[in-house]
Amino acid sequence: MLLLVGIGLWDWKDASVRALEELKKCDVIFAEEYTSRMEEGTLAKLGKKINKKIIVLGREDVESGKKILAEAAKKKVALLTPGDPMIATTHIALVLEARKKKIQTKIIHASSIFTAAIGEAGLQIYKFGKTVTLPKWREKYRPTSTYDMVAENRARGLHTLLLLDLDEGMPMELVEALAIMERMEEEKKLGVFADDAHVVVLSRVGSGEQKVAYAQLIKLKTKKFGRPPYVLIIPGSMHFLEKEFVEGLRA
Amino acid sequence: MLLLVGIGLWDWKDASVRALEELKKCDVIFAEEYTSRMEEGTLAKLGKKINKKIIVLGREDVESGKKILAEAAKKKVALLTPGDPMIATTHIALVLEARKKKIQTKIIHASSIFTAAIGEAGLQIYKFGKTVTLPKWREKYRPTSTYDMVAENRARGLHTLLLLDLDEGMPMELVEALAIMERMEEEKKLGVFADDAHVVVLSRVGSGEQKVAYAQLIKLKTKKFGRPPYVLIIPGSMHFLEKEFVEGLRA
Repeated sequence: MLLLVGIGLWDWKDASVRALEELKKCDVIFAEEYTSRMEEGTLAKLGKKINKKIIVLGREDVESGKKILAEAAKKKVALLTPGDPMIATTHIALVLEARKKKIQTKIIHASSIFTAAIGEAGLQIYKFGKTVTLPKWREKYRPTSTYDMVAENRARGLHTLLLLDLDEGMPMELVEALAIMERMEEEKKLGVFADDAHVVVLSRVGSGEQKVAYAQLIKLKTKKFGRPPYVLIIPGSMHFLEKEFVEGLRA
Repeated sequence: MLLLVGIGLWDWKDASVRALEELKKCDVIFAEEYTSRMEEGTLAKLGKKINKKIIVLGREDVESGKKILAEAAKKKVALLTPGDPMIATTHIALVLEARKKKIQTKIIHASSIFTAAIGEAGLQIYKFGKTVTLPKWREKYRPTSTYDMVAENRARGLHTLLLLDLDEGMPMELVEALAIMERMEEEKKLGVFADDAHVVVLSRVGSGEQKVAYAQLIKLKTKKFGRPPYVLIIPGSMHFLEKEFVEGLRA
């Protein structure tokens, strides 16, 4: 049997009572920490709490799934993941592979940046369009589709949750994200990421250091704001209640 | 101080370690159960676990916020909510009101149907458009905007998470939802809810009785499928991995 167990937003205390209960019954516990970031020490503390050894797998082991599925064919195996499982394509592929091999699967859900960031910003989840990721720009890879997708949501009056790409498991710095957004704006010129465009920026959601602010992009460029990981929200048209809420977050 | 504490998807075991820890430190614990459904007995079991009295508030008390805020001005007060807090507009309004009164606020996040349903269906969260609610039809209130919004997502190749309206806190039966969808189709005739349209239907997500299936709408009409609450997903264009996953769920 294979359990995908979400640890939740930030550290081991974001795991649910059910998650701990299920983990205690597992024969083997694997973990991956490359699809999203977890607070340092999370796995060590969790392992201590449930009194079990947690084996951290590298990207290849999770992606190939071989090691995990070989164990899951015989034993009760858990794969711990940051946030709510199944947000990463790798998890979907792994569950699919397990089911093909007639291995029973179960997902233990947990808190996720998708609803948490939206909630902290006071925006209505029903007014969000497609979620978009801001990719890291490289010498020969400078995609601008992110811009088009935010523009499309905005044209429909919808908000956009803008996630920042991970680079080898490391979250993107805000300054880097803003620089990429600025260069997209220079190219596309629709005002979506113009200096006076307003965004909600959130840092370390769910942690004790969490910061949430509503500001013009230009202001973020000149100000230090929390520590990574970050997530941005580009509001579309706001209900007066949403407007009042974000104004209360103005930096 | 006011804490909004999410209980999570289904029952008290979906609450996080952090939620229990924070609740134990609260002077007053309120709960509301009208914005979404909780498994019966959840609050009683949770109260026993943390050894605290939980006061269930009616809709008016939560919406006016008076009682909650009067206590929160002096004491450490929690409002327990189903799922992840702040998905309901009432919670957003309450936090806003608290902040206006200079009452400190904190949100303890939890698992939510938004990411859980998407994960259980094996669909990619990045490919979802706007979330839509199917309203209950009444004698003189038969809105069809739900249909238009699903059609709009589909035209962009995006999936739609379709939530079913609550009626006085009671979840909608699947048969009622299907009947409303059928009548919308008769009116709009774009095929979005045609008999041969495929949907993912999920029942009691996160519970031991959870059911997930992929089926043509016509098949759901003639088959008993789990118990409420239900949630539906109308897939847009699917990646081959998504397609393979939902085919594995075919009813």
